[in-house]
Amino acid sequence: MAGEIFGEPHRVLYYEADFTGKLTTANILNLAILASGDQGEELGMGTSEIHAQNIGWVILQYHIDITRRPSVGEEIVITTQADHYNPYFAVRNFWLETPSGEKLVAIRAIFTMIDMEARKMVRIPQIVMETYKADRVKKIERIPNPAQLTEAELPDVGHNYYHVRFFDIDHNHHVNNAHYFTWMQDPLGADFLTHNEVVDINIKYESEIRYGSEINSYYKVLPAVDGIVTTLHQIRVEGELMTEAEMKWRAVTA
Amino acid sequence: MAGEIFGEPHRVLYYEADFTGKLTTANILNLAILASGDQGEELGMGTSEIHAQNIGWVILQYHIDITRRPSVGEEIVITTQADHYNPYFAVRNFWLETPSGEKLVAIRAIFTMIDMEARKMVRIPQIVMETYKADRVKKIERIPNPAQLTEAELPDVGHNYYHVRFFDIDHNHHVNNAHYFTWMQDPLGADFLTHNEVVDINIKYESEIRYGSEINSYYKVLPAVDGIVTTLHQIRVEGELMTEAEMKWRAVTA
Repeated sequence: MAGEIFGEPHRVLYYEADFTGKLTTANILNLAILASGDQGEELGMGTSEIHAQNIGWVILQYHIDITRRPSVGEEIVITTQADHYNPYFAVRNFWLETPSGEKLVAIRAIFTMIDMEARKMVRIPQIVMETYKADRVKKIERIPNPAQLTEAELPDVGHNYYHVRFFDIDHNHHVNNAHYFTWMQDPLGADFLTHNEVVDINIKYESEIRYGSEINSYYKVLPAVDGIVTTLHQIRVEGELMTEAEMKWRAVTA
Repeated sequence: MAGEIFGEPHRVLYYEADFTGKLTTANILNLAILASGDQGEELGMGTSEIHAQNIGWVILQYHIDITRRPSVGEEIVITTQADHYNPYFAVRNFWLETPSGEKLVAIRAIFTMIDMEARKMVRIPQIVMETYKADRVKKIERIPNPAQLTEAELPDVGHNYYHVRFFDIDHNHHVNNAHYFTWMQDPLGADFLTHNEVVDINIKYESEIRYGSEINSYYKVLPAVDGIVTTLHQIRVEGELMTEAEMKWRAVTA
């Protein structure tokens, strides 16, 4: 079953790509959220309607499966669907494809809803999910946790500092979640990022990062297994774990 | 007279806006360069054709006159025209407008051309500017220099450090010029940036900033004159002046 499907076209613009000429993972996320926002508007359940009820969506976790990142100038189609939900969690799918249906990226996301003032989880209003025609379930299909760095190994792994900038804050007055990818991937360095292509990301958001925070982005590169390198990531602010991720990469063949 | 006019539509996306819900000046620049790139492609003078001759365009200076920054969701039209040129400099205009013709932003840019290997200025090939039907002149109309911070006052003005990240490099393997706006404006802080709206930017690029550089972004806020606050900016790397700018701001009326 699952809910209403919404799609929209997009041309990959040069400023959405990186050194390799491909759409950044940060912008893959931006485009996914763009499509879900546009679906919300179309169904009369956009951010403004939701915020008017003093509630808001919060992302908990993404699993991103990347077959091929599209290149500058490529036309793509972003599709999204509210899949299933229970009173506290909603699972949404996204797909990036070429107009002829070549699969580029598949994303599964788990959202929850919070009271905007109390900043506490609330039940998702029935009317919201009925509007999206999502399936009501008892238990949602969870995304496994990303493999973790242990606290004991943090002093020995690589890391880099980032400052949350004014321009990292979006018009909803929160740090745009896509920036986490920049903070997590940048410390890997140009050599790693040009010789490895990310194929799988599991990112879990624990706590909200705020403007002006000093971020410590830890990473560990595990030895390759069957040609796939795994990297583990943690973002901490004043020692507190804010976000963790596991990414898988394949070597770029020239 | 002046040359061929090229325009294209764009919807302002949420990830192109800042905390205020308006298109960032960095993305105003990105959209301008997008339009000139698309015009180049249409005329068979795109980046790939130019680079194939081992030459490339380099921006020297922008003057940006902002009447109103468009908001998230707004449809705009970006128009550009190669205006006039002499053997070493080309002057290009850009306009951002609403579909009904309300003027939002006007930009004048001065470009030069370099040999990609020697990284030295070269004569702009006649055929390039003839393709754009730009006016050939003896002397181009220069943009005045931005008002300058003096070296003597640098120790006493505000500043902040930025590291050039992997994702600041574009598919042409250079730092995207639009990031300079982020590095220059971010140090002004959220309070300044939410209570003042930029109306005029004069930015002059002196030297190319490279991946991995540690940027020192200096700024000075001058006292308001007739309700307009002027800020002066310098970006230095290891003490060397890379870029300077003068920005004018009006107080935001709630």
